[in-house]
Amino acid sequence: MSKNKIPTQTAANLGEHKIIEIIKNRLTPMPVMPVPFGDDVSAVNLDREQQVAVLKTDMLVGKTDVPKEMSLWQAARKAIVMNVSDFASKGVQPTAALAALGLPRTFTQKDVEEIADGLDSGAREYDAYIIGGDTGEASDLIISVSLFGTAAKSALMLRSGAKPGDIVAVTGVFGKSSAGLRLLLGGCEASADLRKSLLDAVFLPKARLAEGLALSGCGVVSASIDSSDGLAWSLHELAGLSNVGFLLDSIPVADEVKHFATVNHLDSLELALYGGEEYELVVTIKPNGWTKAKAAVEAVGGKLLPIGRVTEDKQVLVDVEGKRRAIEARGWEHFKSQI
Amino acid sequence: MSKNKIPTQTAANLGEHKIIEIIKNRLTPMPVMPVPFGDDVSAVNLDREQQVAVLKTDMLVGKTDVPKEMSLWQAARKAIVMNVSDFASKGVQPTAALAALGLPRTFTQKDVEEIADGLDSGAREYDAYIIGGDTGEASDLIISVSLFGTAAKSALMLRSGAKPGDIVAVTGVFGKSSAGLRLLLGGCEASADLRKSLLDAVFLPKARLAEGLALSGCGVVSASIDSSDGLAWSLHELAGLSNVGFLLDSIPVADEVKHFATVNHLDSLELALYGGEEYELVVTIKPNGWTKAKAAVEAVGGKLLPIGRVTEDKQVLVDVEGKRRAIEARGWEHFKSQI
Repeated sequence: MSKNKIPTQTAANLGEHKIIEIIKNRLTPMPVMPVPFGDDVSAVNLDREQQVAVLKTDMLVGKTDVPKEMSLWQAARKAIVMNVSDFASKGVQPTAALAALGLPRTFTQKDVEEIADGLDSGAREYDAYIIGGDTGEASDLIISVSLFGTAAKSALMLRSGAKPGDIVAVTGVFGKSSAGLRLLLGGCEASADLRKSLLDAVFLPKARLAEGLALSGCGVVSASIDSSDGLAWSLHELAGLSNVGFLLDSIPVADEVKHFATVNHLDSLELALYGGEEYELVVTIKPNGWTKAKAAVEAVGGKLLPIGRVTEDKQVLVDVEGKRRAIEARGWEHFKSQI
Repeated sequence: MSKNKIPTQTAANLGEHKIIEIIKNRLTPMPVMPVPFGDDVSAVNLDREQQVAVLKTDMLVGKTDVPKEMSLWQAARKAIVMNVSDFASKGVQPTAALAALGLPRTFTQKDVEEIADGLDSGAREYDAYIIGGDTGEASDLIISVSLFGTAAKSALMLRSGAKPGDIVAVTGVFGKSSAGLRLLLGGCEASADLRKSLLDAVFLPKARLAEGLALSGCGVVSASIDSSDGLAWSLHELAGLSNVGFLLDSIPVADEVKHFATVNHLDSLELALYGGEEYELVVTIKPNGWTKAKAAVEAVGGKLLPIGRVTEDKQVLVDVEGKRRAIEARGWEHFKSQI
């Protein structure tokens, strides 16, 4: 008797995105959700009309998220920054954070102090406070942060809402974290200065909170996301949820990344598009609001770089030396990608 | 040259309580904290006067919190319940939960579905919804839940506030989870019925949310905590933070635990006092509010059992057959206790 065996799907081959879909499909939806499941943050209506409580949780796991050269202080700070970045992308000021820590038995008092200091520094850098948490034993370092803030519902910049003709823009250049991660993996070269700049992008990421708040204040952003899963993935998320496409005339690659790519015979566009753990904002802006948005971001010391237009055609394309090339829907994904 | 070496302190010998103290001492305190650091929940003032956002995070770790006989559905549900219990102890209705999951690569789609179903069941049982989360790879199962709700600041039942003369009361009997854990460890006996009852206490714990909301509604509770770290520990927390002591005339031990203790030559009082992972509320009540509080809890189908009085003398004592015995300040503690 022969029988077709259906291979058992494991987390390793399902991948993060499919796992989230499986979970989402089995949850009872809250009757009123001011922010749809799967956007960068979650939210709950408050009594007061049009005000929402904004919530986010994101977990950092030693084995997959912390390269061995990263200090515990840096890891703890980064656990805060990656949550703040999601708030930034929605234009929401975080007020308070909670941290649930899983610590290996062998961690010393100094290790614990470094983690506490990193959490505090990360929170204070963005004008938030750590107000509580939980500590337990785990076989690997776990830092699970949850972030809270309030906002006017109308000020939230969701992932959906981009319209054909809108300008696609980003708050900075790309590729430094993926170049930095490649340096850490070994086999690539860089001068001391270049090495420092690329590793700083990995060890000391910054969230674009001031930029996000400035953009939200303008009221001209039609869609917004952060680039933590990579620029390409973020573009596809925005396009898919807004039911549009993008035609980009350029991908802003960091000069350091171009240099690194040349020295190491790598494709700089590949590094900029398909990286991750990079915390720029990717937004679409109503054409008549462009000047206002750019001025607002520059007023807080930031940059707003136009990279293309929203199209009716649902593809995500980039012009490279006169040729249109499709940007693939891939990026950093837990279970599938490896540091 | 001889030199005294100071042994390096690790998480294993510092223990959970000391680690929390180390962390707390290094954090910048939020200028206005409606709930002090270290209470069962955290809170943030909302714009609207006297309303607070209530927040809690508590992490469940496979290795230390999930006995191997427990299903993933039960573990996920329990991760919600342990957070809800903290809300219950403050008298706050949870509205929404976020779950950050760390999953081993080998977990199957069915495992993921079981976890999603357990989270959803736990939340719906207490009228809350899962509205977001995060998923990543971890070497051990991690379920880090954060819970959100709003409340009138005046309705919060804090750990401090017990006054001499107040009545000490609990919402149920104790010892079933510690007896159940001992059964799982092996070496103890129980009939099939008894075994089921004790294991249910471990696998399907309930949070006393209806009781907590009823008590908060009465306005006669002077201090409140849940018993998740064990009854003895909770009593010492309440006493210490209220700067009082307790004289208990009885410890309500579950009949099943008395029976289990007799058969296995164990001390039932020990099982009831120094267990943990048990989610009753331990409260102090103003004497003239007793009748009201008892009626309110019974109206929601619960029990309120008086167990003693608050004293000026700062000891925590229990009368056992006419002799006063000190209750020790110990209970379940991560890093120090083992399943």
